[in-house]
Amino acid sequence: MNALDTILNHRSIRKYKDKEIPKEILDQVLEAAIRTSTTGNMQVYSIIVTKDVARKKELHKLHFGQDMVLQAPVLLTFNADFNRFNKWCEQRKAEPGYDNFLSFFTASIDALLAAQNATVAAESLGLGVCYLGTTTYQAGKLVDFFNLPQGVVPVTTLVIGYPDEKPNLVDRLPADGVVHYETYSDFSEKDIDIIYNEKESLEETKDLLKENNLETLAQIFTQNRYPKQMNVDFSKLFLEVIKNQGFMNQ
Amino acid sequence: MNALDTILNHRSIRKYKDKEIPKEILDQVLEAAIRTSTTGNMQVYSIIVTKDVARKKELHKLHFGQDMVLQAPVLLTFNADFNRFNKWCEQRKAEPGYDNFLSFFTASIDALLAAQNATVAAESLGLGVCYLGTTTYQAGKLVDFFNLPQGVVPVTTLVIGYPDEKPNLVDRLPADGVVHYETYSDFSEKDIDIIYNEKESLEETKDLLKENNLETLAQIFTQNRYPKQMNVDFSKLFLEVIKNQGFMNQ
Repeated sequence: MNALDTILNHRSIRKYKDKEIPKEILDQVLEAAIRTSTTGNMQVYSIIVTKDVARKKELHKLHFGQDMVLQAPVLLTFNADFNRFNKWCEQRKAEPGYDNFLSFFTASIDALLAAQNATVAAESLGLGVCYLGTTTYQAGKLVDFFNLPQGVVPVTTLVIGYPDEKPNLVDRLPADGVVHYETYSDFSEKDIDIIYNEKESLEETKDLLKENNLETLAQIFTQNRYPKQMNVDFSKLFLEVIKNQGFMNQ
Repeated sequence: MNALDTILNHRSIRKYKDKEIPKEILDQVLEAAIRTSTTGNMQVYSIIVTKDVARKKELHKLHFGQDMVLQAPVLLTFNADFNRFNKWCEQRKAEPGYDNFLSFFTASIDALLAAQNATVAAESLGLGVCYLGTTTYQAGKLVDFFNLPQGVVPVTTLVIGYPDEKPNLVDRLPADGVVHYETYSDFSEKDIDIIYNEKESLEETKDLLKENNLETLAQIFTQNRYPKQMNVDFSKLFLEVIKNQGFMNQ
């Protein structure tokens, strides 16, 4: 399948077969990640492969008990990582100046672009993936779990394995909701109504509202999935991790 | 070409033909970006397409005068963007709680994964791309240039067009430098020597050292490309932009 079809056929997979990923297949996924272009070709990210069943059980708890973490044979945790680069500088009579927020963000860019390349490569090889947004919530605990040194912060995780489901393609907003030409064209009330119309009209949206006894889909997000206090609490924690890992010395 | 080959053949393109990208081709690139999986399917990112020659000239200046910005027919600026989502919440009796750092980072993840999907899609369609790391340095000026409302921060830019060069594949570190199994295996001095050996032995590295009259490749990074004071200055600016755009209220 060509790259475009692979991308357009993406669905997040939350049920996996009890089937290992052969080493040569996993190596191809990792190679694709490693080919990603990075800032100044510094490659300031790292990937941790988890296959060990006991360790997956621990990660299952850390990632809020999502079953797919136990089912899938492999987890890939992507880190913003200046540790190796800093060590290299120090061994080469060069003084690294990467203990600041910009460098954390630069390294996060590298890690995230690599994660998406791994995703596309995995899917082209018949694997399925799902991102774990809980990675930033639990970054501090993951630092301990993986024994991450200074200069390393986890930013996302991919669950990866052979799909045991084929969900329908999930809706996306019309292009007008996402793409702007030349300048940012801000949205009127009417624009917002039009952009969200399809999503709000879906049967599954109606079911969701009934289940949760809420009036609007937006409330599902603000009250149930991503409520303000949770975001505020995890914000503080995540900023603390970034600081503790040595990225706030500007 | 299948997705894996597209990814493995990536090279950043810095010379472009004077040739437009047909609308249907650019639309396919944008569609690929829009299919990217995002946090809770919120799609909290946006893409600004720049084609106007006069506006490209302004962006050329903002992005430190890199010639490819003028040559390439299209620039795509990717933003972390909670503006649309917040407006939707407010119109739907839902109180958004996304004015914090975690939400900024969540939105950045969405934007960056979408950018890499756009990259792979573009390359599979015969286009070339190059990322502009200057986006975070100049985020504040880009906010003004694109007239970005609260809740929107530029995080990366893709230059995109038909390649007028075919550079060699650029070196990457061996997998041992990037991939860890089960726990993070930190690097000994010897490990660092081995991991960087190939890169340090390249002819182009030797040429670079001669040109710059420096002793080690690491010094090229710490003294010329990404010196500490520059990182510190741009860190402060970038954090200020994140705050001004309304993402630091935790």
